[in-house]
Amino acid sequence: MTKREEQSLEIVETKYFNLGALKLESGAAVNDVVIAYETYGKLNADASNAVYIAHAFSGDAHAAGYRKGDSKPGWWDDMIGPGKAFDTNKYFIICSNVLGGCAGSTGPASINPKTQKPYALDFPVITIGDMVNAQKKLVEFLGIKKLLSAAGGSMGGMQVLQWASAYPDDICSAIPISTAMKHSPQQIAFDEVARQAIMADPKWNNGNYYETGDAPDDGLSIARMIGHITYMSDKSMEEKFSRNRRLTQEGKSYFDVESYLHYKGGSFTKRFDANSYLYITRAMDYFDVSDIKFVKAAKKIDVKFLVISFASDWLYPSYQSEATVKLLKLKGYDTTYIEIKSTYGHDAFLLEFDDETKLIKHFLAKVYDDRKNAPAK
Amino acid sequence: MTKREEQSLEIVETKYFNLGALKLESGAAVNDVVIAYETYGKLNADASNAVYIAHAFSGDAHAAGYRKGDSKPGWWDDMIGPGKAFDTNKYFIICSNVLGGCAGSTGPASINPKTQKPYALDFPVITIGDMVNAQKKLVEFLGIKKLLSAAGGSMGGMQVLQWASAYPDDICSAIPISTAMKHSPQQIAFDEVARQAIMADPKWNNGNYYETGDAPDDGLSIARMIGHITYMSDKSMEEKFSRNRRLTQEGKSYFDVESYLHYKGGSFTKRFDANSYLYITRAMDYFDVSDIKFVKAAKKIDVKFLVISFASDWLYPSYQSEATVKLLKLKGYDTTYIEIKSTYGHDAFLLEFDDETKLIKHFLAKVYDDRKNAPAK
Repeated sequence: MTKREEQSLEIVETKYFNLGALKLESGAAVNDVVIAYETYGKLNADASNAVYIAHAFSGDAHAAGYRKGDSKPGWWDDMIGPGKAFDTNKYFIICSNVLGGCAGSTGPASINPKTQKPYALDFPVITIGDMVNAQKKLVEFLGIKKLLSAAGGSMGGMQVLQWASAYPDDICSAIPISTAMKHSPQQIAFDEVARQAIMADPKWNNGNYYETGDAPDDGLSIARMIGHITYMSDKSMEEKFSRNRRLTQEGKSYFDVESYLHYKGGSFTKRFDANSYLYITRAMDYFDVSDIKFVKAAKKIDVKFLVISFASDWLYPSYQSEATVKLLKLKGYDTTYIEIKSTYGHDAFLLEFDDETKLIKHFLAKVYDDRKNAPAK
Repeated sequence: MTKREEQSLEIVETKYFNLGALKLESGAAVNDVVIAYETYGKLNADASNAVYIAHAFSGDAHAAGYRKGDSKPGWWDDMIGPGKAFDTNKYFIICSNVLGGCAGSTGPASINPKTQKPYALDFPVITIGDMVNAQKKLVEFLGIKKLLSAAGGSMGGMQVLQWASAYPDDICSAIPISTAMKHSPQQIAFDEVARQAIMADPKWNNGNYYETGDAPDDGLSIARMIGHITYMSDKSMEEKFSRNRRLTQEGKSYFDVESYLHYKGGSFTKRFDANSYLYITRAMDYFDVSDIKFVKAAKKIDVKFLVISFASDWLYPSYQSEATVKLLKLKGYDTTYIEIKSTYGHDAFLLEFDDETKLIKHFLAKVYDDRKNAPAK
């Protein structure tokens, strides 16, 4: 048994919460919204130890531990568990699949109650705000009025910023990692080319492929390959692949980086829905909390921020985190910012768990102590 | 009449040179190789003022001036013409479409003399070395034994390095701009995703689309969109597009950067061949002159180098030019290196012509004077 397995949670289970109808920011509504979620650790008596973990673009509710039969743990198992950054001996951790996703929560692949067929493109446009509104309902359902913290990287960090923006009274702290208040045109451009690759696949068929069982895997695979280039740094690619080449079984010569992309693209199609790709990247591209939403000037808001970026991340470059920090500081928030040195690029938020653990463990402990010691309101 | 038109060349004409059979580096051969080319200015009596201009990936032989009926000048007209960096009052300028291309030179879309049908994937694998070998034959055909210089950006710069590597005795100087001795895995990765986008288009049909007239435009367009993201910098995208949005005639809202990519992708399909895209990017990915080819230690080689890079170019980052310079200096070459400050990214080599002009004009004049004043051999 490896050290990692020793430190992992017992068997975990994905649960499903039907929150009923959800009114969207667009004005539309989705009925019978189901949110897939997992929880780790125990909620304490006064429900003051709950931390929401928000997943990145292609993540899911399974953030930590092993589900029955799993050979691999959840996507942030390095960070969540007994004694880890998000210490399940101390905190109650919640993670859910986003609205619009394809890993148990309601999204374009779900059955539309009105037609008894998959929504496909009849699914309404969703926003990061809608995702967080659904999370808020889940958190309330679990008996929590105010979160100790919300944390997440990449699109998870956007949700964290949205939590602080939309529910500043219901959250003690926020940990946005490798993220931005809004996408730059370069980030939008990468998303758009990925969307075009999906929509150019004839099997996409204007979103109607669920019933044929013949999904636009080629297009989705290309979209994912573009993503993987942006998740690594120039340097981490050099370290991992250099210009190494090898022959395939068919006698073709590929650079290792090509084989890596082919593999990553192909395996992604087995777990992700092409329409979800379109809806969720749109939500990211339209997201923008760089205005004054963070501040309700008339009242004192006491959210503490720990903002983390990584030096080699060129998809969500440090200057974007610095812009967030600048705005927060200008508005008087208690904000700590760390740029972690790393060569891993955007993937660093999933890989540099030693550095992240030191920062987050200490930050959370302080927020928790402050909350316990605060005079009751 | 604008200042630019005043300074431009008279009407120019594309010509075609049939060099016969070309033996390739792979050992294969192509028969009846035609190379499309243009020349500007006049070759002097001792044929000592000839400069070869090598085009980038999607360029062609039409580097400067206007052909009959053209509304726009050649792709480097800012740099080539009377009084310009490559001064046609002084130098004889040659530019040709690369072997494997689709703008007049023999490539996969050309008729295979054996079958009387387009080659498609029967076209043999080609290299940057093969392209330059064809250029060497063209230069000889024009009566030139030794070039005064070879210059070019991006893939043009690769050809320049190849000229210096393969024909060091037949070139006085070399001006590689925004280029590399070899592609990094990140550069290979972008090329490979573009190739996958083309090959995933059912209309690509394993390369056989010439006779149906129904080319893989969707795939080629996506490939080009990926390219355009890498040609600009994060900052130049912000300056050009920010997060501006507008409505299309159909009432859809697109970010300006999306409309730009759609336009650039679509227009590219009208002028470029998808199979050429596959062959030429492969040639770039396999190119590697980072070994000792530059040097034949036993003899003195007197090629002068002017290496230029641009600070915001992340597709061919300055560290790659610096590696070239380091190798050249180590081997004792007379090498000047300038990194030009610019926000334009990789596109800078086409846009920062004021800075380039100052550097190149002076460099070429010096090389020309040295050649004239050298003792006859």
